[in-house]
Amino acid sequence: MNVSSSSGPAAVETQAGPAISSVTLPNGMQVVVIPDHRTPVVTHMVWYRNGSADDPLGKSGIAHFLEHLMFKGTEKHPQGAFSDKVTELGGQENAFTSLDYTAYFQRVAREHLRTMMEFEADRMTGLVLSDDVVAPERDVVLEERRMRTETDPGAQLGEAVSAALFAHHPYGTPIIGWMHEIEDLDREDALAYYRRFYTPENAILVVAGDVTTEEVVAHAEATYGRIPPRGEAPVRRRPKEPEIRAARIVKLADPKVEQPSLQRCWIVPSYTTAAPGEAEALEVMLQILSAPQTGRLHKRLVLDKRIAVAAGGWYQSTAVDPSRLLLYAVPLPGTDLDTLGTALDEVVAELARDGVTDKELQRAKTRLVADAAYAQDSQASLARMYGSALATGSSIADVEHWPEAVEAVTAADVMEAAKKLDPRRAVTGQLLKDEAA
Amino acid sequence: MNVSSSSGPAAVETQAGPAISSVTLPNGMQVVVIPDHRTPVVTHMVWYRNGSADDPLGKSGIAHFLEHLMFKGTEKHPQGAFSDKVTELGGQENAFTSLDYTAYFQRVAREHLRTMMEFEADRMTGLVLSDDVVAPERDVVLEERRMRTETDPGAQLGEAVSAALFAHHPYGTPIIGWMHEIEDLDREDALAYYRRFYTPENAILVVAGDVTTEEVVAHAEATYGRIPPRGEAPVRRRPKEPEIRAARIVKLADPKVEQPSLQRCWIVPSYTTAAPGEAEALEVMLQILSAPQTGRLHKRLVLDKRIAVAAGGWYQSTAVDPSRLLLYAVPLPGTDLDTLGTALDEVVAELARDGVTDKELQRAKTRLVADAAYAQDSQASLARMYGSALATGSSIADVEHWPEAVEAVTAADVMEAAKKLDPRRAVTGQLLKDEAA
Repeated sequence: MNVSSSSGPAAVETQAGPAISSVTLPNGMQVVVIPDHRTPVVTHMVWYRNGSADDPLGKSGIAHFLEHLMFKGTEKHPQGAFSDKVTELGGQENAFTSLDYTAYFQRVAREHLRTMMEFEADRMTGLVLSDDVVAPERDVVLEERRMRTETDPGAQLGEAVSAALFAHHPYGTPIIGWMHEIEDLDREDALAYYRRFYTPENAILVVAGDVTTEEVVAHAEATYGRIPPRGEAPVRRRPKEPEIRAARIVKLADPKVEQPSLQRCWIVPSYTTAAPGEAEALEVMLQILSAPQTGRLHKRLVLDKRIAVAAGGWYQSTAVDPSRLLLYAVPLPGTDLDTLGTALDEVVAELARDGVTDKELQRAKTRLVADAAYAQDSQASLARMYGSALATGSSIADVEHWPEAVEAVTAADVMEAAKKLDPRRAVTGQLLKDEAA
Repeated sequence: MNVSSSSGPAAVETQAGPAISSVTLPNGMQVVVIPDHRTPVVTHMVWYRNGSADDPLGKSGIAHFLEHLMFKGTEKHPQGAFSDKVTELGGQENAFTSLDYTAYFQRVAREHLRTMMEFEADRMTGLVLSDDVVAPERDVVLEERRMRTETDPGAQLGEAVSAALFAHHPYGTPIIGWMHEIEDLDREDALAYYRRFYTPENAILVVAGDVTTEEVVAHAEATYGRIPPRGEAPVRRRPKEPEIRAARIVKLADPKVEQPSLQRCWIVPSYTTAAPGEAEALEVMLQILSAPQTGRLHKRLVLDKRIAVAAGGWYQSTAVDPSRLLLYAVPLPGTDLDTLGTALDEVVAELARDGVTDKELQRAKTRLVADAAYAQDSQASLARMYGSALATGSSIADVEHWPEAVEAVTAADVMEAAKKLDPRRAVTGQLLKDEAA
């Protein structure tokens, strides 16, 4: 067993956070303990290093479908037993599938941690699936897709924009999967995927709460530790994205659209793929552009030019592969989307050309670091911050030293980051009201 | 051995062409003989039912790369021996890789057919590859890509448009492969691909020329017939395309562009996937829209409106999976591409709304059938017509009865076909001169 405390003096100096420990069990499962003694509660999460971007070709949606099926019971605990137990203990549970990971979590009183571990360890290898449960659950997922995407023009545009942005890489495929591929997913697909990825080597246990490393490790050894190792960690096989040298515009006009909108996206480095400081510079730049009320997009498009009712952005920085950065604007009636797009480009170009003021830079950094600190106030989001970072290839130290890395971003770094947002390489989404229909 | 003559009375009635035979050797290889006694020459082609769309994920370009490597020699015939022999015999040779197939052909005097078969059969299983020949040939392919695509804005736009049109299906990947994936192709990739697809079950021999079925089959049995069967035909594994409900516009502006242009593409059924008559209706419709001088696009955009210097279209009808139809227009100086696109849409909408005249319909059909008849005048294109049809899942009878199927297309069918070209689902390519740079 390999125990290491990652919280060195540097981290303690800059962040008065908990001393986070990481332990690797002999079967390869990583155990991360985040002390949080404010309430007698624990958040118990198991993260698997596989998400929708690891769906085999032609089997899109299988990661998400399996997440649903993981609630179908094991030989030891029939369907519903785990959820009933959580409810009986007054706890909460959930699960989520992302592009790069799948995670299961429960929040219970601290004395029930061991019970959660027993149940969760049991379903890591003991899942029982019959066609009787698989087919109806597939209908549930199909209905979920129908409700969320098929009938929502904004969601349809989002899928088309993602597919255009990632021409080759599976980040272009929706997490829930393409309708026609979900329809074909069956028990064998689910079990093959389960056997490939649900192994101790591929899992990360994150426990945040009123616990010590010693007791978590002892419980983990007695539960997860009994699962035999597979021998090697599963490998993510993903094609790399080619460099598409063209601007792409995706337009969707639908009578159901009440509010037109514009988005521009780019593929940019993620924390995992970026050079040192590069992702932090993108975060700071995005903050300067898109912060509510004070961001430049809001100031220029909403306040000065009065052509938008809202404007902002988003950067999916936690990702295994190069990821996406998105800017958006919602037009005031009478503003066409091309005009809005040009105005948005000008805001970015100005940032790349003229840079930022010291005050703007400092405000952006302060806000970023403060937001991260506030997020840690919730035990679940604290656990989630570490889990998502570890599941995408970052380390505990990366998370702990992140505030320093943000502080180190210079005005020149921000200008460089803004230069990445070249309109000639952007993918633009235009959501329009179809007046004719 | 299973011999069948596919040229039934119906075909003889409508087309005074040769009686084409198809034979399947015991090892699964199909042998097609197309008598053509006009000159004492034969065209010898071997078609494999695998093309770039069968490249394994992350290994784009392997079908095309292997096509290059197939000239690197076998134990029996070292590198250059086959080509030297063709030259010595006064013949011609070539090879090509398409989305759905790879083919090798030689054209020689009839008495050398057996020699060609011996060489071609030898390299179906006897290819010898060393790293010494693989690495330099990969550089050749990389240079080919650099020359054709990397430095040509039109080719770059074409790749981006294809990638946008086929978001998921491998028809969106260039035949030559993505640069970064070609760079990683190695000897093992080539041999694994070779072993998977270069089998008698996956091959079609097409011989057109001054030969009889009996002699071709006798030669084939003595050469290809000696290759042991693999046991089963390789399977093409391709994801299906989701229905993307958005218009997509791909813009590329480059200082090197001399002539801007506009293209609109749609995914439409191919002969293999279409309902009976549907692909023929698309062909007739395309003819009506895009025939040189007489097509509606030329008439409306070039002659009437004087906004284009050229306009036309293209339909990739021979394909295993749903395929593409493309319309294009080249603007007169002073016409912007959005205006041109709207005018193009109006021509299509008019066809879908108001239909065609009998005269227009008949002229389109006559021309289509005549073009196909003219193509058969060349032995190589005759052989190619059958080879490509068979390699994508059509039958000899389909090819033979095609003129009748075209004649059966009605004005209503053409209107239906035109309705498939919905601008709200189109992928548009805009090639622009970058004046700023």
